[in-house]
Order: sequence, then C-alpha cells, then structure tokens
Amino acid sequence: MTAHPRLSLNQATIKYATLPEALDAAVAAGYASIGLWREPVQAAGLGESIRLVDDSGLRVSSLCRGGFFTMEEGPERRESIDDNRRAIAEAHALGAPALVLVAGGLPAGSRDIVGARERVRDAIGELADDAAAAGVTLTIEPLHPMYASDRAVVSTLGQALDIAEQFPPGVVGAVVDTFHVWWDPQLLAQIARAGHRIASYQVCDWATPLPADVLLGRHYPGVGVIDFASITAAVEAAGYRGDVEVEIFNQDIWNDGYDAVAARTRDSFADTVGVHLS
Amino acid sequence: MTAHPRLSLNQATIKYATLPEALDAAVAAGYASIGLWREPVQAAGLGESIRLVDDSGLRVSSLCRGGFFTMEEGPERRESIDDNRRAIAEAHALGAPALVLVAGGLPAGSRDIVGARERVRDAIGELADDAAAAGVTLTIEPLHPMYASDRAVVSTLGQALDIAEQFPPGVVGAVVDTFHVWWDPQLLAQIARAGHRIASYQVCDWATPLPADVLLGRHYPGVGVIDFASITAAVEAAGYRGDVEVEIFNQDIWNDGYDAVAARTRDSFADTVGVHLS
Repeated sequence: MTAHPRLSLNQATIKYATLPEALDAAVAAGYASIGLWREPVQAAGLGESIRLVDDSGLRVSSLCRGGFFTMEEGPERRESIDDNRRAIAEAHALGAPALVLVAGGLPAGSRDIVGARERVRDAIGELADDAAAAGVTLTIEPLHPMYASDRAVVSTLGQALDIAEQFPPGVVGAVVDTFHVWWDPQLLAQIARAGHRIASYQVCDWATPLPADVLLGRHYPGVGVIDFASITAAVEAAGYRGDVEVEIFNQDIWNDGYDAVAARTRDSFADTVGVHLS
Repeated sequence: MTAHPRLSLNQATIKYATLPEALDAAVAAGYASIGLWREPVQAAGLGESIRLVDDSGLRVSSLCRGGFFTMEEGPERRESIDDNRRAIAEAHALGAPALVLVAGGLPAGSRDIVGARERVRDAIGELADDAAAAGVTLTIEPLHPMYASDRAVVSTLGQALDIAEQFPPGVVGAVVDTFHVWWDPQLLAQIARAGHRIASYQVCDWATPLPADVLLGRHYPGVGVIDFASITAAVEAAGYRGDVEVEIFNQDIWNDGYDAVAARTRDSFADTVGVHLS
C-alpha cells in the first residue's frame, strides 16, 4: 500500500528505531519521505546516514533539531551556536530543506522570559548566513505554552513569525505543528500571514487527560480533538506544498512495532489530513 | 500581622475549608478580603453565608465560578444559563463585584473549537442584562491553553477582551491570572489594552515539572518562574485598583493547615506582588 505522496514519517514516532530500521519501516509502509533526528543520524555516522538515505530512495523532509539557545552570553551559548552550525551542515548534507529549531526554556533561576526571547532572535541572527549559504531554512517551532518555562519560550505561530520576518524568506521560517498550536484563537489568521514562511507542517492529535509526562500526550490523527480539515486547508491556502510529517511522542506507540506504527500512521493520515491536501 | 490591604485569599487555596473555617483563617492571618467559591457557600446556605461574611468584616473580591456554556442549544445549555443566572444573584447577594466565568471545553465528540467559542459569546450575551442589573461584572477567565479541550476554549487575554468589548464596561470584563497567561508573548500589550476591563487579578506561580494532574501545578508566588514585577506593574498601569487574589490549586498546600497556608500566602504575596502594588 502506498502512502499519501506528501506524507513523511517523522523518526520520533518510532523513537527506538535505528536509522536503518526507520528507513526500512518507512519504505515498507509505502512512504516517499522521512523526517530525521540528529541523534540516530549521529549514531549511524553522517556519511553512512547519507548513503543509507540515498539507498532508501526517500526524501528527507526535515532534520530535528537545533535551537536551545536562550542562555546568556558565555561558553555554554557559544557551544550551542557551534552545535547549531553543525546541525545546519548536517541538514544540508542529508538534503533536508528545513532544520527544526526549538527555542529552549528559561535559563535556570531566571524569570526573564522577555530577555530569553530576545536571545532566541539574536542566535538566529548569528546563524542566518550559514543557513542561507547551505540552502537550509531555519525553521522555528512554536511549542505549546505548557512547555514555555522548560523547553521553548516561543509559544505561538505569530511570535515565531515576528522573528522569522526579520530575515529573508527561505532563510528563516516556521513550523506549524498541530499539537502545539491547535488551541490558538489566532491560528488561522497567522497561518494566512505566514504564507511561504511555513517551512514544515507536522501533524498529530491532542487528547485529554494528558499523561503524567506531558511531553508524551500526542496521538494518531483522528484520535483526539484537533480539526485537521480547517488547519490543513489553511496551510494549503497559504501555499505550502512540502511534505507533511506525522510526529507522535507517545510511550504506547513507541512500545509498538515499527511496521505497525508506520502503517497506522499512514492510514490515519490518509483519512484525516491527506484528504485535505492538494 | 496584617496582610497587604489589597490581598484576598481565594478560597480554593484552602479547598477543604468550610466557609466559616475559610473566613476564620483569613481573619486570623490579617486579610481584609476573601474570594469565595459557590460550593462552600451553597454548603453553608446563601443566607447564612451572607451573615458569616458580614460578621467577618471581610470584603468579597469575587465569586467563583460560572460559565461552562459551550454546549449546543438544548436542555443542558438552558440549565447552564439558568445556573449562571443564579450565580449572578449569589454574587450580588454576597457583595462580590465579579463573577468569574470559565468558558468550558469542547463538547464531547466535537472538534469545532470555533463554534464552541461563538457559543461562549452568545451565552454571555444572554446573561449581560442580568449582570448589569445586579451590578456584577461577568469576568471571563482565560485559562492556560493546556486546558483548551476539556475546560476552557478561551485561552488568552486578547481573546477574552474580544468578547468583553462587545458589551458595556463594567458588565463584562476579564481575569488576569498569572498562572494561565504568564507565557503569552502578547500579555503586557493585552493588559494595557484591557484597561478597566480587568475585573480580577489573580496570582500564583508556575513551576515545572507539572504534576500528574496538570490542574494542580500551582505554587506560592516566588517559588516558580513568573515575573510578578512586570505583570503587576502592567496591571497597575492599566488602572486596576481592586483586590488581588492568591488562588493556588496544589495538593500539598491543600493538605496543609488552613492557618499556615493563609500565613504563607500572605507573606509570599507581600514579597513578590505586594511590593509592586500602589
């Protein structure tokens, strides 16, 4: 069975798979695209990863992830900027058009969320030339506000666009991840504003109650409350024509077999999202 | 020891106290104001509650809570509207200037958050005349987006104001509750926009990790990451001169003695919020 031609399996959905296992699962389930994470790529080695991806015939929709640069100036911040430069190079080498950036939370002991946000913008400013030269879009991912203190001080699409618009199109963009932004009363207006700044569209569903680890409360599309019809139509209308990743953090799904997860992801996507794509 | 003259003890902070116990704890700790909840008031009886409050000498800063009217037309919705009318009458009888409204989540099986939000506005429209006649401000409380599906489809102050501004000032306003809105990149601008629409200011702190029940992740001011200085200054600058409630949902605090909680609330408020109040 063939997956929707724009569907991409984000590797985090089968978190425990090695890169070869993830590529095999995606190919076996009929995918044409995969979203990679740096850790399994590094475990395989970058050169070997490039070869494996080439052999698979899959496109790489994005590389996750860079970012985590809210700290004040100092050695830790320099290390973060350097690591993001390496991530840009990896994305380029793997043929990923987008490097997904998670801002990072408040530094330990800090209550200055305004300052942390300014340092996110400044870090992207330091990286923009490298990204432009590599042909990789720095793709800011607003995370759900429940992660604002410890993971991402960028919480809304509008806020991500306020940063992205300070840089040329194609150099800095934003992710629309349904799990993170579905609740936002400004969502559809901000997607329209984003236009070609949308550099990645990621989908999974939201359901309550949240699990004890709130990072893991994501679900197959269709299981929860998110209206994929209106959000997908808005992303289409904004002009996005790239791959659409399913990225699910969920312990039960991680415990399941890779082929079964890839197949269920494919089928749930077709019914809920694929039908609304061009 | 006397509490800050504008500090109010929201009864939810000592959830297991009866109304007489809550009033005693507030008086003993030197408060001049209390925020009441309908359940303990109803347990004591409305007439007896009025007498107890009068005897205590405390002001009533608000009554929690009405709302929960996202359902479609039908008997359940009529019951909700009727119950909100009773809540307005109770607030008036108790001398509470504000009735706090929590919107309610998505109806079971629904993915139509846009429609649910419209029904919130329509319900407030049905109640506005009663509220104006009673001299009670319908006070919309935006809740943190992590509650959008199951508790409140109103998630930001801006969204609450979009509704409130459709009605006369004093009839419909909004709560600024630091726990729910601290993360919002538009917060300070929306507080300025709100001006005298701010009908209640509630404070408690945010800390991670969240507990397994995400409703209970609230803390004494100063324990977490919220910058009470900037938010309080903005609420002051907007012109709010009413009482400031501390409302903490936290199992450990609920398990503690009422007098100890009232005292620690008073002291943590003085250090973190009171110093920024006029």
